[in-house]
Amino acid sequence: MVDIATRVWNHKWKIDPIVRSLIDTDFYKLLMCQSVFRNKPDTVVTFSLINRSKHIRLAELVDEGELREQLDHIRTLRLTRGESTWLRGNMFYGKRQMFRPDFMEWFEGLRLPPYHLEKRDGQYELTFEGKWPEVMLWEIPALAVLMELRGRAVLHKMRRFELQVLYARAMTKLWEKVERLRAVEGIKIADFGTRRRHSFLWQDWCVQAMTEGLGEGFVGTSNCLIAKNRDLEAIGTNAHELPMVYAALADTDEELAQAPYEVLKDWHEEHEGNLRIILPDTFGTKGFLERAPDWLASWTGIRIDSGDPVEGAETAIAWWKSRGEDPRQKRIIFSDALDVDKILDLHKRFAHRAKVSYGWGTLLTNDFRGLVPGDALAPFSLVCKAAAANGRPTVKLSDNPEKAMGPPEEIERYKRVFGVGEQKRIKVEV
Amino acid sequence: MVDIATRVWNHKWKIDPIVRSLIDTDFYKLLMCQSVFRNKPDTVVTFSLINRSKHIRLAELVDEGELREQLDHIRTLRLTRGESTWLRGNMFYGKRQMFRPDFMEWFEGLRLPPYHLEKRDGQYELTFEGKWPEVMLWEIPALAVLMELRGRAVLHKMRRFELQVLYARAMTKLWEKVERLRAVEGIKIADFGTRRRHSFLWQDWCVQAMTEGLGEGFVGTSNCLIAKNRDLEAIGTNAHELPMVYAALADTDEELAQAPYEVLKDWHEEHEGNLRIILPDTFGTKGFLERAPDWLASWTGIRIDSGDPVEGAETAIAWWKSRGEDPRQKRIIFSDALDVDKILDLHKRFAHRAKVSYGWGTLLTNDFRGLVPGDALAPFSLVCKAAAANGRPTVKLSDNPEKAMGPPEEIERYKRVFGVGEQKRIKVEV
Repeated sequence: MVDIATRVWNHKWKIDPIVRSLIDTDFYKLLMCQSVFRNKPDTVVTFSLINRSKHIRLAELVDEGELREQLDHIRTLRLTRGESTWLRGNMFYGKRQMFRPDFMEWFEGLRLPPYHLEKRDGQYELTFEGKWPEVMLWEIPALAVLMELRGRAVLHKMRRFELQVLYARAMTKLWEKVERLRAVEGIKIADFGTRRRHSFLWQDWCVQAMTEGLGEGFVGTSNCLIAKNRDLEAIGTNAHELPMVYAALADTDEELAQAPYEVLKDWHEEHEGNLRIILPDTFGTKGFLERAPDWLASWTGIRIDSGDPVEGAETAIAWWKSRGEDPRQKRIIFSDALDVDKILDLHKRFAHRAKVSYGWGTLLTNDFRGLVPGDALAPFSLVCKAAAANGRPTVKLSDNPEKAMGPPEEIERYKRVFGVGEQKRIKVEV
Repeated sequence: MVDIATRVWNHKWKIDPIVRSLIDTDFYKLLMCQSVFRNKPDTVVTFSLINRSKHIRLAELVDEGELREQLDHIRTLRLTRGESTWLRGNMFYGKRQMFRPDFMEWFEGLRLPPYHLEKRDGQYELTFEGKWPEVMLWEIPALAVLMELRGRAVLHKMRRFELQVLYARAMTKLWEKVERLRAVEGIKIADFGTRRRHSFLWQDWCVQAMTEGLGEGFVGTSNCLIAKNRDLEAIGTNAHELPMVYAALADTDEELAQAPYEVLKDWHEEHEGNLRIILPDTFGTKGFLERAPDWLASWTGIRIDSGDPVEGAETAIAWWKSRGEDPRQKRIIFSDALDVDKILDLHKRFAHRAKVSYGWGTLLTNDFRGLVPGDALAPFSLVCKAAAANGRPTVKLSDNPEKAMGPPEEIERYKRVFGVGEQKRIKVEV
């Protein structure tokens, strides 16, 4: 029987909204948001969309009107009562009441601030300027909207069975990855694929397939909405935007040099255990670890998010040893451009030397490579970054100069202050 | 929204019936049934299930209670008003009122006769004895039920996403075939896969995928229910059971030798055009064509259903030439154990020498080879044949001795009467 009411209801939709919840975002965004809400609530920050894959001419692929409709829809979203209850009452990383009442009250009242959208050279210039805790929440939905609209533009031309076979192929592709991964003893993988997912429904399918296929080997998802709906762990700690903004706010080179540690000092006060994960690469991993205060060596682990991951992990292990720590008690989370081959290789190298886990992103939730002519659904490298704070440009050096951001003269200053020399260039695919 | 009524209704089903309609059968069965109803209505025939793939121990895989439930359900089926209207009013092969009022009246009152079921040596002995026009209609549903129950026994142990990926893989597999076939200029393919389909829903999906993927290249389906529901051509002409039963009824060797031509004489009176398709292999193609009366050379085409198809087609082409006919005006329908490679090869060889088309069966609607461990869903060679008529055993020689049927001494007599010498053995896969 056709459910007539559902069908009629569906016909009433003005648009098919891509993001339908304020918690359809990465868990670490909310953790960071609370931290920022407490420590830097009035900092004015600008987030900017950056398409590193210049050959994907987004403004030609995605209709501006559709994009505005989607972004406008996100601005109508409010935290629902059930979402709020979940955030307030759920156990995250073994801890209840991770989110404090004052933060929750603020979040319950929040609507996302306005956006600024222009077309230039076949690309969209999409920026969000405002108080840091507000604008930072645009990052993930903005990326997800652009990724999915680009996909929809391609799917729009396909016929019914072509579409079904497209998803059949994508499912088969993912399941073959699952079958390879579940053969690995002790694997621990989380979904980090919200921002560059093919679509919400697809990410939700991938997460469920990982749950069934990997069992205990699938530790959770960074996506709060999916974690809530599917009763999974919400996974994530912190990201580059914290040291980037703290650094931009520094008035002197001395303060700049200390900024990344200030971030972690604030974090140290607030979190413990598995949430104490160092993200060392914002201004170069090597110098960061060398100059790190001793208390940082006591942290639970490290996340390797750029550069050669083998080199990054070796650097971390050597650093722990130099500080009298046992690397086998430490966690290394790999999260940069992972796919099965890389996961298996890293696992072979490091699983016996540390606790390792994997934050698997784009190639978990958006591996549509090779599935349509012209590879028009292949994922690409789209990011949305804090570009300025209180009027000053931010800088990111990363362990891969291809991922560096900021005005050239500022990059030079940061390289000097953080003692970053020659870096190896690695092509950024996703 | 969940359609609660549908869900509750579904829970009320005692079984999930595999065959839900008397026209969920091959079109040629109905054509032959009408012919038999007219010419031999009181002949008592026994149909028997034969599993040529002895290693598939059906009675161990399929629960007897479930099998009986399915067969009992089929005995409750009656032609619906809509089905009757379609049979009476639809245009088949360009002709209206293909089915005569007296036949339709009989069909409208029909319920399938009892079956006889026993287990022996890990196999089911399933037989249907009664008036030919009634028992002949058991063949297709009986095969479809056993094929699908065997599949269900395997699927029963699989988990949700495993199942989804299984069908994703099967869809991908079929679509890759469609993509190869649609690249071929002038291809003409029909679905002949009802009897050994994976399931009804899967056959329905395959037919729709072929419709979208091949367009004009997909000429229709042998399945009447799907043809009706999907507004496609119903395809098919006649089968071995006609000459087999006519031959068994012959009282002398002379009558036996004439029996296959008697069948076609009856058919000639009744049908014209594209329904005049010779099926020459029941007692050996070569001798059958050599001794054929001249009027048979005027028929529209021939169906190659056993033996080496290249040899069969060459024999037909040479025969037409010897009778002064232009093979390029004739149709050759290949229908034995086809898959894409074979279709492409035959097309290359014969498309410029005759009108060729393909009745694609098992490997269209049941290619689950390689998709589950132990290949437990691979199709196998199950048939249901007229084994006796008015108490006399039937015989089939075929162009492949692996497909021969009947008591050895009768086979010898037939070989003598029809002048069949040495035959090439070809392994029967499906």
